[in-house]
Amino acid sequence: MYRTNTCGELNLTNVDQKIVLSGWVHKIRKMGGMTFIDVRDRYGVTQLSFNQEVNLELYNQANKLGREWVIKVEGVVKERSSKNIHIATGEIEIIANKLTVLNESKNPPFTIETDTDGGEDLRMKYRYLDLRRSVVRKNLELRHKMTIETRKYLDNLNFLEIETPMLIGSTPEGARDFVVPSRMNQGEFYALPQSPQLFKQLLMVSGFDRYFQIVKCFRDEDLRADRQPEFTQIDCEMSFVEQEDVLNTFEGLAKHLFKTLKGIDVPDFPRMSYADAMKYYGSDKPDIRFEMKLVEMKDLIVDRDFVVFDSAPYVGAICVEGCAVYTRKQLDELTNFVKRPQVGAKGLIYLRYNEDGSLKSSVDKFYSEEDLKLWAERCNAKPGDLILVMAGETEKTQKQLSDLRLEMASRLGLKDKNNYKCLWVVDFPLLEKDEELNRYFAKHHPFTAPKPEDIHLLDTNPGAVRANAYDMVINGVEVGGGSIRIHDSEFQKKALSVLGFSQERAEEQFGFLMDAFQFGAPPHGGVAFGLDRLVSLFVGLDSIRDCIAFPKNNSGRDVMIDAPSTIEKEQLDELGLTLGKAKK
Amino acid sequence: MYRTNTCGELNLTNVDQKIVLSGWVHKIRKMGGMTFIDVRDRYGVTQLSFNQEVNLELYNQANKLGREWVIKVEGVVKERSSKNIHIATGEIEIIANKLTVLNESKNPPFTIETDTDGGEDLRMKYRYLDLRRSVVRKNLELRHKMTIETRKYLDNLNFLEIETPMLIGSTPEGARDFVVPSRMNQGEFYALPQSPQLFKQLLMVSGFDRYFQIVKCFRDEDLRADRQPEFTQIDCEMSFVEQEDVLNTFEGLAKHLFKTLKGIDVPDFPRMSYADAMKYYGSDKPDIRFEMKLVEMKDLIVDRDFVVFDSAPYVGAICVEGCAVYTRKQLDELTNFVKRPQVGAKGLIYLRYNEDGSLKSSVDKFYSEEDLKLWAERCNAKPGDLILVMAGETEKTQKQLSDLRLEMASRLGLKDKNNYKCLWVVDFPLLEKDEELNRYFAKHHPFTAPKPEDIHLLDTNPGAVRANAYDMVINGVEVGGGSIRIHDSEFQKKALSVLGFSQERAEEQFGFLMDAFQFGAPPHGGVAFGLDRLVSLFVGLDSIRDCIAFPKNNSGRDVMIDAPSTIEKEQLDELGLTLGKAKK
Repeated sequence: MYRTNTCGELNLTNVDQKIVLSGWVHKIRKMGGMTFIDVRDRYGVTQLSFNQEVNLELYNQANKLGREWVIKVEGVVKERSSKNIHIATGEIEIIANKLTVLNESKNPPFTIETDTDGGEDLRMKYRYLDLRRSVVRKNLELRHKMTIETRKYLDNLNFLEIETPMLIGSTPEGARDFVVPSRMNQGEFYALPQSPQLFKQLLMVSGFDRYFQIVKCFRDEDLRADRQPEFTQIDCEMSFVEQEDVLNTFEGLAKHLFKTLKGIDVPDFPRMSYADAMKYYGSDKPDIRFEMKLVEMKDLIVDRDFVVFDSAPYVGAICVEGCAVYTRKQLDELTNFVKRPQVGAKGLIYLRYNEDGSLKSSVDKFYSEEDLKLWAERCNAKPGDLILVMAGETEKTQKQLSDLRLEMASRLGLKDKNNYKCLWVVDFPLLEKDEELNRYFAKHHPFTAPKPEDIHLLDTNPGAVRANAYDMVINGVEVGGGSIRIHDSEFQKKALSVLGFSQERAEEQFGFLMDAFQFGAPPHGGVAFGLDRLVSLFVGLDSIRDCIAFPKNNSGRDVMIDAPSTIEKEQLDELGLTLGKAKK
Repeated sequence: MYRTNTCGELNLTNVDQKIVLSGWVHKIRKMGGMTFIDVRDRYGVTQLSFNQEVNLELYNQANKLGREWVIKVEGVVKERSSKNIHIATGEIEIIANKLTVLNESKNPPFTIETDTDGGEDLRMKYRYLDLRRSVVRKNLELRHKMTIETRKYLDNLNFLEIETPMLIGSTPEGARDFVVPSRMNQGEFYALPQSPQLFKQLLMVSGFDRYFQIVKCFRDEDLRADRQPEFTQIDCEMSFVEQEDVLNTFEGLAKHLFKTLKGIDVPDFPRMSYADAMKYYGSDKPDIRFEMKLVEMKDLIVDRDFVVFDSAPYVGAICVEGCAVYTRKQLDELTNFVKRPQVGAKGLIYLRYNEDGSLKSSVDKFYSEEDLKLWAERCNAKPGDLILVMAGETEKTQKQLSDLRLEMASRLGLKDKNNYKCLWVVDFPLLEKDEELNRYFAKHHPFTAPKPEDIHLLDTNPGAVRANAYDMVINGVEVGGGSIRIHDSEFQKKALSVLGFSQERAEEQFGFLMDAFQFGAPPHGGVAFGLDRLVSLFVGLDSIRDCIAFPKNNSGRDVMIDAPSTIEKEQLDELGLTLGKAKK
């Protein structure tokens, strides 16, 4: 028997019990004729005590142990003289009477501590050691709990978890499919799903009524810092629902998770239209932990011969509380910030509303004090505030102001990670125009239903059609999104044709879905959440990487196992494939 | 609002309530001036009643509905005059006052009934309609419950569900890997996991202590009737355990599932050695719902000049109760059965122990009545029993007798699907010799630990080394298996060398695991269950196909979505691949 107890549970109630523990040597301290060893497992740390005078042989054995060795110890629980109140086992120690080395360990390449000395690359190469650090382990423990609680909540509401296939068909529309050559059907390929979208809709046609799945999805795209080629979705779909039914159901899920995992009661989620989100926050995922809303100024600032403002279709501002004291250098930093290619603005106008009531702007020569007073009023500014103004094409400028708003919030420490502000953004546009290609794309996906009252615009002004589509946003992060779907076969055909699908291509790619819709498809809608993202938000990490046991790096590579890798020629032959002369 | 209630819940307590239901038109019955419509959803069926005299317009509207149309109905719950006690809603009906068609339906290509008129091919092409049949839906409902209960049980025991990667490295050892070309790393391939084996062992090195995952695995092999290229495992691993710890933990899981899903208390699982399983059942997955054990006869039958028996290293029998009355024709059938290539025997000897006590065998000219009496005694036969004897090479003959035993059990109706007999088969051989290649392969996998007491045989008699490996067997089906793993880096190297791995290849393929073992790997072991198989056993199906929402056919093809399929040349170019001149 390797253990009677774990290393995290013994306390004063266990005094004088004979116990067996197994775990890793975490720390060794030698003091006079005593050696203290902290033995660690997933559940905690327990102190072992070896006394030279009581058992010299055992004492000598203990002194030979090294960091991260795996040991089994038999002994008796005793009250400690110098207690540690910070850990559960801190009031006791084990007087060892037998010690067995289960495995030795080389010295780890970095310390197994919260503040490790290991860099990202080293930690990833030895991920199995990195995962020993309690700070990483806790993320995965929370991830486990989140999936357990998600299933509990959805199971209680009669959702069924149904597995959809991983080996599906490739659609050119989903350009970033990973493909899988088939040996039994040479020359043909499966694709790995980017989402189970079509299958969950088919399950609604099948009458499953309420479906969910916590499922791996795949996307072969160039990876930004915070994307992974494989990621996990909480994927859901419901029949006989309107938009509010879906929102309430999954707002309930989020509340359940906050309550059970964080002990937080979050209030009802406000609904904000996409139009308002853009108007007031310049973003479709507004961070509403703080105000600093965008203020439209165009009507106030015309006709003063300042060509930058006069020629711009949009002029907007944010009012930053208490920042009138910003120095020239600080303001220059902000100008440089908005000029960075990631933001892409041409410049930044400021107006200081000084504590003494005076007004000082970077455009004083164009605008009178009267004018500037009106600006301050429009922005609801108080003495001491700083107003930052930008001008240009409407949507672009709103997004730039949004970037600036978030930057100011960071500088002012307004992004409290323990303050969770949730909302639904609703009424997304159905379509998005690619100006270069001069065609419309589905903003969400081609199966999203337009709002019935906007359908008449589909032919005349498709860009104005709003969809029954929604995103859940928490602290400026889109954690999930979904829509009510089209369930009418003919209408689905029309939607695809608006998206530029020829009838042939529509048939080829989505024929089986439109066929299915002809056999009694119910009204339905759903949502999908990014589990990795949700976990990172709950544990307060900006990156998802440490919420995943074995993540890949920015090149899609697992540096621990060194994948992907070349395969043998026989394997390629069996698949009927040859490596091309592509750049290596 | 689409519904106030589901179609499965209204009863006499709801009488006079105004309700709204949505669902599918299941049945239409017209009787005089009345039309009755059964509306169906996942939860049940409710009768709607339309009376010509009360509301002619609505009555006419109802008569225009077709099978599988999707409708919404508003009405009032009333007590039925002619009750149906077989369904939950059978005492009430809905007096409709408003009817809305949500979607029409073409006539389905087969009936949505338990006994459908649709053949397998048609059902698979229109799987979304097939899934409407309650007999298929119930399998998926049980599957959902099984995963919920599995997680509940394991979560209670501190197991953490941890997702391991789907895009891993290919190992030539795992010949039947599906590979995934990488666009970002042209010329290189990921592989889809055949199991998370290495990752779960690394998680033990990381100190996760108790891991599980319900996870998709992949194997690109020629598909027998009951294999799928993608399948789901309940995959588990534990640290600081001996074999009995693992067996008890997962015997507990099986008991929990039988109790919660079937209401059955199954008794403790017997442990049977692999050697005994072969000796008494001719199989490493014995069906112990019935006796008919194999009986060794070799010592009884020598020296009677019957060359078939005399030359055979093994002669064995089964005693089939009450079958002495078998006719010549029936016995010929059995002989033909064992001669089928799938069984591969040369012939079959019988001995009838007639009710009158007389003995009649097919080898009377070689054996005296005295001899035959000894046979009957050895087999514990009673008057009326039939003894069937086979001879040949030991293991081969045992397997043939096992096939015959199972065939007799089928004929005698001894395979009661509601009688669940579970056991553990333990002490599997570590290695299996491929006589053709004259080398040993791992019986379980290369990470399985031998029994300590057999290690000394590794160099001298490797075939005799037993492993700490085990299978859970229920009703003759192997539902899961596992082993205690090697956790010593040096010993793992030795094990790989016994398996014929050069040091180089061992390093290349399993280097990261052996590296990991050098940093303090704990003793560990685990098990994996086939979820598809387990579900099929619980629902009493022989095939796993109807326990999977969207299965593939024997060619690995999804005929509903028509996958796999060709992909466009641009996509191949991006991957740096060319289709070879392989046979199409």
